[in-house]
Amino acid sequence: MNNFTFYSPTYFVFGRDEEKNAGKYVRRFGGSRVLIHYGGNSAVRSGLLDRVKASLEGEGLGYVLLGGVKPNPRSGLVYEGIELCRREKVDFVLAVGGGSTIDSSKAIAAGVLYDGDFWDFYQGKAVTEALPIGTVLTIAAAGSEGSPDSVITNENGMYKRGAHGDVLRPVFSILNPALTQTLPRYQVACGVTDIMSHLLERYFTTTEEVEVTDRLIEGLLLSVLREGPRAVNEPENYEAAANVMWAGMLAHNNSCGVGRTQDWASHDMEHELSALYDCAHGAGLAVVFPAWMRYNMNRDIKRFAQLAVRVWGCQMDFACPENTAKAGIEAFRRFLKSIGMPTNFAQLGAKEEDIGKMAHTACWGNGRKGTIGGFAELNEKDVSEIYRLML
Amino acid sequence: MNNFTFYSPTYFVFGRDEEKNAGKYVRRFGGSRVLIHYGGNSAVRSGLLDRVKASLEGEGLGYVLLGGVKPNPRSGLVYEGIELCRREKVDFVLAVGGGSTIDSSKAIAAGVLYDGDFWDFYQGKAVTEALPIGTVLTIAAAGSEGSPDSVITNENGMYKRGAHGDVLRPVFSILNPALTQTLPRYQVACGVTDIMSHLLERYFTTTEEVEVTDRLIEGLLLSVLREGPRAVNEPENYEAAANVMWAGMLAHNNSCGVGRTQDWASHDMEHELSALYDCAHGAGLAVVFPAWMRYNMNRDIKRFAQLAVRVWGCQMDFACPENTAKAGIEAFRRFLKSIGMPTNFAQLGAKEEDIGKMAHTACWGNGRKGTIGGFAELNEKDVSEIYRLML
Repeated sequence: MNNFTFYSPTYFVFGRDEEKNAGKYVRRFGGSRVLIHYGGNSAVRSGLLDRVKASLEGEGLGYVLLGGVKPNPRSGLVYEGIELCRREKVDFVLAVGGGSTIDSSKAIAAGVLYDGDFWDFYQGKAVTEALPIGTVLTIAAAGSEGSPDSVITNENGMYKRGAHGDVLRPVFSILNPALTQTLPRYQVACGVTDIMSHLLERYFTTTEEVEVTDRLIEGLLLSVLREGPRAVNEPENYEAAANVMWAGMLAHNNSCGVGRTQDWASHDMEHELSALYDCAHGAGLAVVFPAWMRYNMNRDIKRFAQLAVRVWGCQMDFACPENTAKAGIEAFRRFLKSIGMPTNFAQLGAKEEDIGKMAHTACWGNGRKGTIGGFAELNEKDVSEIYRLML
Repeated sequence: MNNFTFYSPTYFVFGRDEEKNAGKYVRRFGGSRVLIHYGGNSAVRSGLLDRVKASLEGEGLGYVLLGGVKPNPRSGLVYEGIELCRREKVDFVLAVGGGSTIDSSKAIAAGVLYDGDFWDFYQGKAVTEALPIGTVLTIAAAGSEGSPDSVITNENGMYKRGAHGDVLRPVFSILNPALTQTLPRYQVACGVTDIMSHLLERYFTTTEEVEVTDRLIEGLLLSVLREGPRAVNEPENYEAAANVMWAGMLAHNNSCGVGRTQDWASHDMEHELSALYDCAHGAGLAVVFPAWMRYNMNRDIKRFAQLAVRVWGCQMDFACPENTAKAGIEAFRRFLKSIGMPTNFAQLGAKEEDIGKMAHTACWGNGRKGTIGGFAELNEKDVSEIYRLML
């Protein structure tokens, strides 16, 4: 196990109707004048926004509104939010929505207190100061409700970058699983895939002797195997939604990733797909991850066999562990298919002729130096071959 | 799943040699003049105290020392610590030791800022203010390094009480597994038992639909099954010590207990044993928990069978799940015996004639109203019968 630090100071408030306490928590964490940042019309139509506003009013807190966050949140709205916060002397940013809304809120919270261009933080400048951020989460997937990360798309060239800093961790996050029960089935399945991927990116490690985190990851994967399909197929099932939502937080606050190297090449490869074809992130991951596994299986057959036995319930083939490893990957593919996820390029709308370009950007874009991945270091040729496995 | 809040704001610093950074973290979390609170001579002899002092000096931080914490920490030393902190204008308490030292430090930190008697907090008064607390942990077991709890023994009558409050959560905790490698084998085994018990007290619940926390508990138990015996039998094995130490924190910061009822009757019953016979807490638990299980198994055979299959690797007896449940309890007993734990009253030095008295105090002491336990509500007669199973 490697030396590590672990810090997850967010106050999590989980359960039915808890958004009605948003005002109480804003006050507890020092807010007096709030930016409510949200996405599309669903928060308005569902009455969620009204409940949050009423909660703030009940505590005598002033607020201003800024809606319109889109998936893959844009820099333009961040600049607008920063201006609005300064003009209105906002001292607290409350995100009401999913990962995109939270990420946009984090960018605004950091930008308000910074004299320069907020984009500096997305080009490597450390974020050391930000307005406090709270969240009311409406989708289980991204994990931004408990993470120190934010990803924004720069509209001047349409490229994505990330910023990081402990001050970007929400001071509180309200997770009401019932809010996720009205999502389209496909979106729930994409969330389930994203959660599993966050766990698997941490599972594939080169660090030895990491039994505790291995078992935590396996345990969360097992719980998602049971609860994910129920959440997808039974929108009326609050308990399934609740288990998936809490697993989504735990999958990405790094409690499962401490003390070990991680991979993240599948995420890098997926970002190329969603950038080019505008597919959902989870759908892209469903196509990428099994291909990545098949390509890299032989780097550590024992680890792939362990996953297959412990999570997928495969029989260990002691004479030929490769068979067990393969059976596990196949079980993962079948699972993704069963919850309605795509399994190949065609179903994503992706094209073979773009493979070269995507492989190049994956390995050289975002300031990378020709390779991606911590478990398996992949170059442009490797990445191309993995994309080909998805055809 | 029940509604819940989860808050674990401690900054954990894990790994070899990290105690050398104690000064840096005290400074980061606002300390300038420090009480270093520690236990016996081992911290002195091993050089640990010198390393911590050097680290504070390196940051230009002043400090005063207070040693002498004993297992089951006493109120007398807490009063002394409070006086010392006031006289010396201390603004940060650094615990160097195990659970007892940390609990004593928490009591001092709360008492310094309170005009009344610190004991008020141990009689139900909420702790809302305390000096910041840091820890350098030297034993894997208690979990106080990540918890909001403190237990102190009042010397005026020799009874134990607990205080609770989020301000009692350490602002940072340094966990260097190497510090636990010099402990006597028996003490390591007691720690392993205590960790497993913290997990099992949470596992036995009446709340339905708690797959995520079930799987987390099972995962941590599985990791302790592998790493615990290695830590006991191979003191030179840093990796085993590291896995046990991190499991110990996770077992008690309540990440495994959110959204579900818990039990804790075994802890209550054990406290009577250690109060009367001065046995180690872990050793007492090793005797109590299997007996508690046998007595209460029929309240939820499915849950006991699930534990047996998922953690102890028992075959499910579909015709008679009771057999599976029993096999799991027997496997647990064998495991405890294999790491050198006692399995009955005689080995603890406990006496049959005290059973009535212990059962009475367990159910009526500490302000209780005749029953203990959240999974199985036990009265004095139940508790007596469970003690009898340990003969």
